Amino acid sequence: MAADKLSTRHLLGIKDINLNDIELIFETADNFKEVINRPIKKVPSLRDITIANIFFENSTRTKLSFELAEKRLSADVVNFAASSSSVSKGETLIDTVNNILAMKVDMVVMRHPYAGAGQFLSRHINAQIVNAGDGAHEHPTQALLDAFSIREKLGDVAGKKVVIVGDILHSRVAISNILCLQKLGAEVMVCGPTTLIPKHIAALGVKVEHDLMKALNWCDVANMLRIQLERMDIKYFPTGREYSMMYGLNKQILDSLDKEIVVMHPGPINRGVEITSDVADSKQSIILNQVENGVAVRMAVLYLLASQNDK
Amino acid sequence: MAADKLSTRHLLGIKDINLNDIELIFETADNFKEVINRPIKKVPSLRDITIANIFFENSTRTKLSFELAEKRLSADVVNFAASSSSVSKGETLIDTVNNILAMKVDMVVMRHPYAGAGQFLSRHINAQIVNAGDGAHEHPTQALLDAFSIREKLGDVAGKKVVIVGDILHSRVAISNILCLQKLGAEVMVCGPTTLIPKHIAALGVKVEHDLMKALNWCDVANMLRIQLERMDIKYFPTGREYSMMYGLNKQILDSLDKEIVVMHPGPINRGVEITSDVADSKQSIILNQVENGVAVRMAVLYLLASQNDK
Amino acid sequence: MAADKLSTRHLLGIKDINLNDIELIFETADNFKEVINRPIKKVPSLRDITIANIFFENSTRTKLSFELAEKRLSADVVNFAASSSSVSKGETLIDTVNNILAMKVDMVVMRHPYAGAGQFLSRHINAQIVNAGDGAHEHPTQALLDAFSIREKLGDVAGKKVVIVGDILHSRVAISNILCLQKLGAEVMVCGPTTLIPKHIAALGVKVEHDLMKALNWCDVANMLRIQLERMDIKYFPTGREYSMMYGLNKQILDSLDKEIVVMHPGPINRGVEITSDVADSKQSIILNQVENGVAVRMAVLYLLASQNDK
Repeated sequence: MAADKLSTRHLLGIKDINLNDIELIFETADNFKEVINRPIKKVPSLRDITIANIFFENSTRTKLSFELAEKRLSADVVNFAASSSSVSKGETLIDTVNNILAMKVDMVVMRHPYAGAGQFLSRHINAQIVNAGDGAHEHPTQALLDAFSIREKLGDVAGKKVVIVGDILHSRVAISNILCLQKLGAEVMVCGPTTLIPKHIAALGVKVEHDLMKALNWCDVANMLRIQLERMDIKYFPTGREYSMMYGLNKQILDSLDKEIVVMHPGPINRGVEITSDVADSKQSIILNQVENGVAVRMAVLYLLASQNDK
Repeated sequence: MAADKLSTRHLLGIKDINLNDIELIFETADNFKEVINRPIKKVPSLRDITIANIFFENSTRTKLSFELAEKRLSADVVNFAASSSSVSKGETLIDTVNNILAMKVDMVVMRHPYAGAGQFLSRHINAQIVNAGDGAHEHPTQALLDAFSIREKLGDVAGKKVVIVGDILHSRVAISNILCLQKLGAEVMVCGPTTLIPKHIAALGVKVEHDLMKALNWCDVANMLRIQLERMDIKYFPTGREYSMMYGLNKQILDSLDKEIVVMHPGPINRGVEITSDVADSKQSIILNQVENGVAVRMAVLYLLASQNDK
Repeated sequence: MAADKLSTRHLLGIKDINLNDIELIFETADNFKEVINRPIKKVPSLRDITIANIFFENSTRTKLSFELAEKRLSADVVNFAASSSSVSKGETLIDTVNNILAMKVDMVVMRHPYAGAGQFLSRHINAQIVNAGDGAHEHPTQALLDAFSIREKLGDVAGKKVVIVGDILHSRVAISNILCLQKLGAEVMVCGPTTLIPKHIAALGVKVEHDLMKALNWCDVANMLRIQLERMDIKYFPTGREYSMMYGLNKQILDSLDKEIVVMHPGPINRGVEITSDVADSKQSIILNQVENGVAVRMAVLYLLASQNDK
């Protein structure tokens, strides 16, 4: 059993939490996963808490997942969608959020295009912050739900070999995943073209591999990141088609491996680019489990943060 | 009294339901109409149900009507507005919806620009689907509320003569209305310019009339469809002005008829095009009753579908 | 103690309410301010009321403030965001709102770009209307929360000297503030460039001053209006930079005054234009109190209007 309090008032990044925090979140999420699979999926835990979802970037699925987590905890939810341009135009980030807080909001779930936006806020305002993605920096709840899904599928994360395939350079999902998996004792490799892997990445203690077949033969789990097709220009990579030929995962490759690896994807999938449909829908894929676990893990995070304030 | 279960798990189109289903929905809607006219308009029936409203097309009033129906049944509601372009761009429809379902949503109310989108989904996913309009195919709750409003006004639908006036070619409202009215025993006529009436329509057993005066003299009820002014080009019809001269209903015409006909419109009205303001606001118009009945009928549909899952 | 009923069924403008109404709203808001500072911020007062927020103009903070006020009163809330273009295009304002009302909505909170839109509606529909800003006409809840914040800070409004600085010509906030402060017995001055002060304003009984230093030396409270930078063209004023040099408030000016004045701003702030950051964040600023009081004052208005319908 993990200690029963988080070591932090906010969830800004995996960097700032420890192994006990992660285990506490997982144990709590186990309980909430039972809850959301009951006919009655709601608990009154956060009945007196108001949460503002402030999204300065579009995000259909992360926003929906947080919103469901909040509603199933019986929190009061207000949504605030802002284009990042409106923020740069008229008002500073801190004015926007201060205004929301003056309205007596207890917790802020924020996505923002700038790295460090959550951290900046947490130093200037009184509410608790959950980072739902800040630039290319961190996306901690995604990493937690990914690791939770590996643990659910394989029994444990410690000792497992996980390769993250794709655009590591621009990915907050990759960074948060590396930090989370390492804290849990997994071995991590990144795989992709040279242009999409940051030079300093080896300093984090991850293996680097440019050959997809070698990576797949090494791993227990392959996390296939979404490719931003708009980045597939001459600067990073010739074309989406060429990317999928070199780094796309299809059924033929999957079946050619010596062992049954687990396939993950944070979504939304470009079917036929990162993975083909028969891989996405195969029994080795835990992509929809990731989505389901997302709600349970976010319920756990919100619940544990709110508990910080109890005497 | 109708049998107490629907014959279907989904409401995809009027085509797929039978007379008993329609009667059951009407009897249930009678009760809910009482509920929403009480000071306390809420019932706890769907307290443990989560409904996602997924609208791939803009729809202010249908979405609002469903949302109110859901909230008055005490369901948990999440809204998901997506442009159809984002679906075609990054992700297949089935991925979008599978993701939403993995979050343990019980029911999906969906509007989509492609005909058959609801049917396609119902074959691939586990949740119950309510079609809130799919391309030029069907809009079943609109047809149900229209027929419910005729029954309320005239006591019965059977034996009544209903003319649907306007752009039959592009209208899901027209198709669903024809099917629903015929199942209930009404005689149906369509009326409009040749270019806006599909060639095969007589095969459905409806009368076709191009002269508005003849149609009005025949009918008990005239359902004046909204004209999409952007379709008023050389391909279909010269101009909106010319349309309103030939197919618009004004007070002078209405008063010249031998009997008092009932005037309907699914909204939003182009005042002065399909009907003039004095017609829209006259006591022969049941346009606002249609809107009011929309909430009651949608409550009935959602309630009955949810009841399917009880042991 | 004020009489316990408002003199009006709607809140369309400060023009239409009397001193007793304002005092009743303030006393009720005092109670709600206590409520929203408790751990449990919710009261069941409007449990059976459905409120539609209809915003024909973008308004992040006013909409959020109303929505929080409604949720803390336990009302059912539906949001309706419409571009004013869609209204002018397809449908009249009255059709839009009639449709919403046919769905049995009890109260409408509306923002609209045309002056008098709320008043027009109140004559044609049955629900109660709260004007959340209509063109350059009125924004009554803003004026109420501003006066409430002065009363909170200085003990009373009567006898206080308040200067409103900026674009008086286009500002509904200015007009509503003048009317509200005068009813409460304050002396009001407006200050700004000739081109941004309406010719007839002196007829309202306010002082007019074009020199900011003179205005600040006179007043107890300075309400620094937001400058619409898009209006800073040759017609009204050379540039934003020149505006801030002549009418912007900085710490040096503030400290040079003989007394400690109170600084207000309706938000969102253009930091460095109307006021500098050190002024906005100084202890003389009550800008965040205004935001906080906004929720309490709006709860009071909604609660009192709903009480009108009790026997």
